[in-house]
Amino acid sequence: MSEIKEIIDTLIEFRNARDWKQFHDSKNLAIAIGIEASELNELFLWKNAEESEMVDQERIKEELADVLCFAFLMAEKHGFDVKEIILEKIKKNNQKYPVDKAKGTAKKYNEL
Amino acid sequence: MSEIKEIIDTLIEFRNARDWKQFHDSKNLAIAIGIEASELNELFLWKNAEESEMVDQERIKEELADVLCFAFLMAEKHGFDVKEIILEKIKKNNQKYPVDKAKGTAKKYNEL
Amino acid sequence: MSEIKEIIDTLIEFRNARDWKQFHDSKNLAIAIGIEASELNELFLWKNAEESEMVDQERIKEELADVLCFAFLMAEKHGFDVKEIILEKIKKNNQKYPVDKAKGTAKKYNEL
Amino acid sequence: MSEIKEIIDTLIEFRNARDWKQFHDSKNLAIAIGIEASELNELFLWKNAEESEMVDQERIKEELADVLCFAFLMAEKHGFDVKEIILEKIKKNNQKYPVDKAKGTAKKYNEL
Repeated sequence: MSEIKEIIDTLIEFRNARDWKQFHDSKNLAIAIGIEASELNELFLWKNAEESEMVDQERIKEELADVLCFAFLMAEKHGFDVKEIILEKIKKNNQKYPVDKAKGTAKKYNEL
Repeated sequence: MSEIKEIIDTLIEFRNARDWKQFHDSKNLAIAIGIEASELNELFLWKNAEESEMVDQERIKEELADVLCFAFLMAEKHGFDVKEIILEKIKKNNQKYPVDKAKGTAKKYNEL
Repeated sequence: MSEIKEIIDTLIEFRNARDWKQFHDSKNLAIAIGIEASELNELFLWKNAEESEMVDQERIKEELADVLCFAFLMAEKHGFDVKEIILEKIKKNNQKYPVDKAKGTAKKYNEL
Repeated sequence: MSEIKEIIDTLIEFRNARDWKQFHDSKNLAIAIGIEASELNELFLWKNAEESEMVDQERIKEELADVLCFAFLMAEKHGFDVKEIILEKIKKNNQKYPVDKAKGTAKKYNEL
């Protein structure tokens, strides 16, 4: 079985055992992703570059995993293939951010 | 090659071609994940359950892919194995949310 | 003294007593506003309209106050007059969202 | 009239002219605050301390005003007095962050 399918199957099994599908509409899943992203951000709040390097890896791991869990659940809900939607997005970004214009700059595509 | 490795390799190739590694410290990646999560949320803003179901799938796909791209880049930066950190987190959540207490309720673990 | 000046003076006094000005650069204040906004969101996560009405008012009050505290500190840092920037923004929104087009619809200005 | 009442009256007038009260339940207002906070964050994304100082003040002003608008609308919706809830929160934070422990450190209260 593919890794991503294995991850999603485990998430769905966890969710179904708790009868949580009823709560996981797209709007709430989006909110959940945002909340977990915020908890990840909190680990770096007020920290400079050097201090940010010293944040406990275990906590980063957990908060990042939370973001990923809800993002995978959202993908599953909509029948999206995770690999496919990411590769498609990279293709689009290849056009939005052509190498010759975007190289070495963090500007947004509409400012290139 | 594993799917996840293939996704991450493609992301790294995209990033390196633009010399963007310099911008991708953990703090900024966390901020980026939050911003993309917010763009995903914006698709559902002011919409009730029924209207939320009618949001353009292409836009959900793109915003969700953006969240996933930065989350995968964060995992790669820290040398985390995406599958491993998700399965570990589900294991922890199995303990935080025991089926007999969590079934059918959306309460947070500290309120169960 | 104006109310807003009184609020900001109290915030600055609190901040200075702890020598926290050093942490309050604009980027971190923006992150802090986002984190507090997320904590406010968490109060409504997984809740439908009816359940959202029943969220503890004290908790909403506290999380909203946190958002406002950091937003006021950000305004002070940049020398913005809170009332002025809000009234200016409403003026702009009056043009972006003309009553005859925006009435009764939650569409974004670029979709009107 | 107090400044804050004047701000809120102007916001309510703007909202009512468009018949938008129907969309402004607490959950959606919280999401809106989070989205605006994210747009504020985007101004500083990928920027170091020096570059963050050079972000266009007009854009900061607008995004911060958006956060404040929705936060004030949320306060109004719940009948909260903006000044009162902020001063109350500062009082609580005075206890959570006693000067002798919190001075000069950005640690969270539960790590002091």
